[in-house]
Amino acid sequence: MPLSMYQASIPLLTRGLENLAAILHKAAAHAEAKKIAPEVFLNARLAPDMFPLVRQVQIVSDTAKGCAARLAGVEVPSYPDTESSFAELQERLATTVTFLKGIAPAQVDGSEERPIILKMHSEEVHFSGQAYLLGFALPNLYFHLTTAYAILRHNGVEIGKRDYLGEV
Amino acid sequence: MPLSMYQASIPLLTRGLENLAAILHKAAAHAEAKKIAPEVFLNARLAPDMFPLVRQVQIVSDTAKGCAARLAGVEVPSYPDTESSFAELQERLATTVTFLKGIAPAQVDGSEERPIILKMHSEEVHFSGQAYLLGFALPNLYFHLTTAYAILRHNGVEIGKRDYLGEV
Repeated sequence: MPLSMYQASIPLLTRGLENLAAILHKAAAHAEAKKIAPEVFLNARLAPDMFPLVRQVQIVSDTAKGCAARLAGVEVPSYPDTESSFAELQERLATTVTFLKGIAPAQVDGSEERPIILKMHSEEVHFSGQAYLLGFALPNLYFHLTTAYAILRHNGVEIGKRDYLGEV
Repeated sequence: MPLSMYQASIPLLTRGLENLAAILHKAAAHAEAKKIAPEVFLNARLAPDMFPLVRQVQIVSDTAKGCAARLAGVEVPSYPDTESSFAELQERLATTVTFLKGIAPAQVDGSEERPIILKMHSEEVHFSGQAYLLGFALPNLYFHLTTAYAILRHNGVEIGKRDYLGEV
């Protein structure tokens, strides 16, 4: 089977969301076991001008749903970014996974040259579907997933590379 | 043009290495401007049981050359992991880029089902070329690239998402 746009996108995005959900379950359990307020982790950041954990998780969700929708040529669903607990972040990730699972291979396959236009800092950036997926969406997904992981590792949560990668 | 294994691997690995090289140039300049010993950054880590910056950079290189070589069916070049300065890390990254640029599309294209066997913790893990690239090599590349970035951001180096993504 030759590589397809669907295989190079939806299953990877879904796996990223599911791995992040598993990592957040461990973080919530760690907070409870150590009697640390969950907000300490949810608002933790690696530098004063970097986003805290909650926002990293929201951006993982945004990256996944935006990529899936744009490649499939459907409207990007809008979520309100109001999460303030581990449970609400889990709900956000689950909602995003459900959206991704509703995208059929036929909607995404053949999107290599589909024009994708993003508004970034009031500028329009034009991509082909392939350049958008490989050069923008996936690197962004892994960036925010790794940053969420790093925030938690930095704060003592016992997670490892296998939690990030999932089952290989 | 349908998505190809070459397009989904070598240019992304090369770009990751080049973006990391640019980030390390900024870190070296920052260390010099602030009169901070480069070793402070090179040995910095986000948690006591995480790898320091030097090792993160070596693993980015290892991931890139390992992925390129395995998909192309050639021997993985071995580098001695002795770098202890920004200049030596730049050399390591440049050597890795040169290796990647020597891989032709025809060597990698069609490797979707090529069997890839990795030794991990004394166990053998079997992948198809496609599963190895998408589920293991690329997520690992971005993991260690992002961790290197996060170590530097955490330590005050002025870099941003654009340095991580490169030109989009």
